[in-house]
Amino acid sequence: MQLYGLPLSCSLATRIALLEAGAPFEYVEVDGPTKRTLGGADYREIHPLGLVPALRTDDGQIVIENAAVLQYVADLLPAAELAPPAGSLERVRLQQWLGFIGTELHKGLFAPLFAPDVPEAVRAYALAKGTSRLDYVARHLEGREFLLDRFSVADAYLVTVLAWTLVTPIDLKQWPSLAAYARRLHARPSVAAAFHAERKLYTEELARHGKPLPAALRPRAD
Amino acid sequence: MQLYGLPLSCSLATRIALLEAGAPFEYVEVDGPTKRTLGGADYREIHPLGLVPALRTDDGQIVIENAAVLQYVADLLPAAELAPPAGSLERVRLQQWLGFIGTELHKGLFAPLFAPDVPEAVRAYALAKGTSRLDYVARHLEGREFLLDRFSVADAYLVTVLAWTLVTPIDLKQWPSLAAYARRLHARPSVAAAFHAERKLYTEELARHGKPLPAALRPRAD
Repeated sequence: MQLYGLPLSCSLATRIALLEAGAPFEYVEVDGPTKRTLGGADYREIHPLGLVPALRTDDGQIVIENAAVLQYVADLLPAAELAPPAGSLERVRLQQWLGFIGTELHKGLFAPLFAPDVPEAVRAYALAKGTSRLDYVARHLEGREFLLDRFSVADAYLVTVLAWTLVTPIDLKQWPSLAAYARRLHARPSVAAAFHAERKLYTEELARHGKPLPAALRPRAD
Repeated sequence: MQLYGLPLSCSLATRIALLEAGAPFEYVEVDGPTKRTLGGADYREIHPLGLVPALRTDDGQIVIENAAVLQYVADLLPAAELAPPAGSLERVRLQQWLGFIGTELHKGLFAPLFAPDVPEAVRAYALAKGTSRLDYVARHLEGREFLLDRFSVADAYLVTVLAWTLVTPIDLKQWPSLAAYARRLHARPSVAAAFHAERKLYTEELARHGKPLPAALRPRAD
């Protein structure tokens, strides 16, 4: 299995899922600006729009879109219990969260905040509209450990998306239940290992392009 | 079953699915500006963010988010074959399209184009970025009748979203395969009936708020 991804982008959620399941996979890093893999292949031949993640399955199928890739991984590796059984009401709840995170948080709030070519008015609009979406998730997480009753691929997606607040004007401390959730999730071995690996790759990517590491991502003494 | 929706919004996709399956349902119309149902109830008690669709199932569960609601309806009414079987690779393909339509088209391209309070820069950015997404779907539909091998809830969602081009600067004729797809789909009885019903409700909604019907939605002689 090959996971095509950009370091610290949404493809990190699939890395978390694969690490949770202990599944072997090869990470094929895509270079953001050039859309070429580090091996030099044109990633647009895998996904014409250059969007990540893409998963190449062991039988050569390409699966795209976070909600589909994450459910595919969960169903491929059922022993890890990364998703409620297909067809159950709990799976519907998982799909709700994958949909909400993908549309309201990832696309609606965060994508405009860190895409390189975004006018200031677009960022301001996304911020103004997006905080109500964080309120909504924060309320749901009050008194809960995970989005569903146990860890699922929706948590892998949410913890990935929430990490982007580091490079935006959003301060997660405004939402204590979200900040506590992120802290708990980052203490989980799969999540910690995924972020550790991708921070390293991201640092290398910036160095390749002669760009400094954002202050929020620099290692700290604490 | 009750479908909470705003006329001609994305909840129309679920109406199409329910009509395809011949399932009885009650449509509970939400008034866009006030977020109250026409019966006067506060819709935010159903969905705190006021987003549609929401489906109240016969056993009282509330299901939200298009991708989840549409798959729920398909799985509830399997005789209509609105989705490939849960757990199949074809279901993964359906989830890809539901994800793509929800994130790249609905949220990324269309939502900024017709929300009432959007700065011009936001619309321009969405348009500039969004046309590559229409290229992608148009290429997929060349020589195909549906997104998958047969009609599915992903088509119900796509035909709903494409109809929004009427009130945007996007001219679907630029993408002949998309324009032909929309024409074919609108000839389908469930789609025709859903749009007919919701155009009427939308016209009534505008009249309630003393607003004129956009020219693109007025009945034409042809």
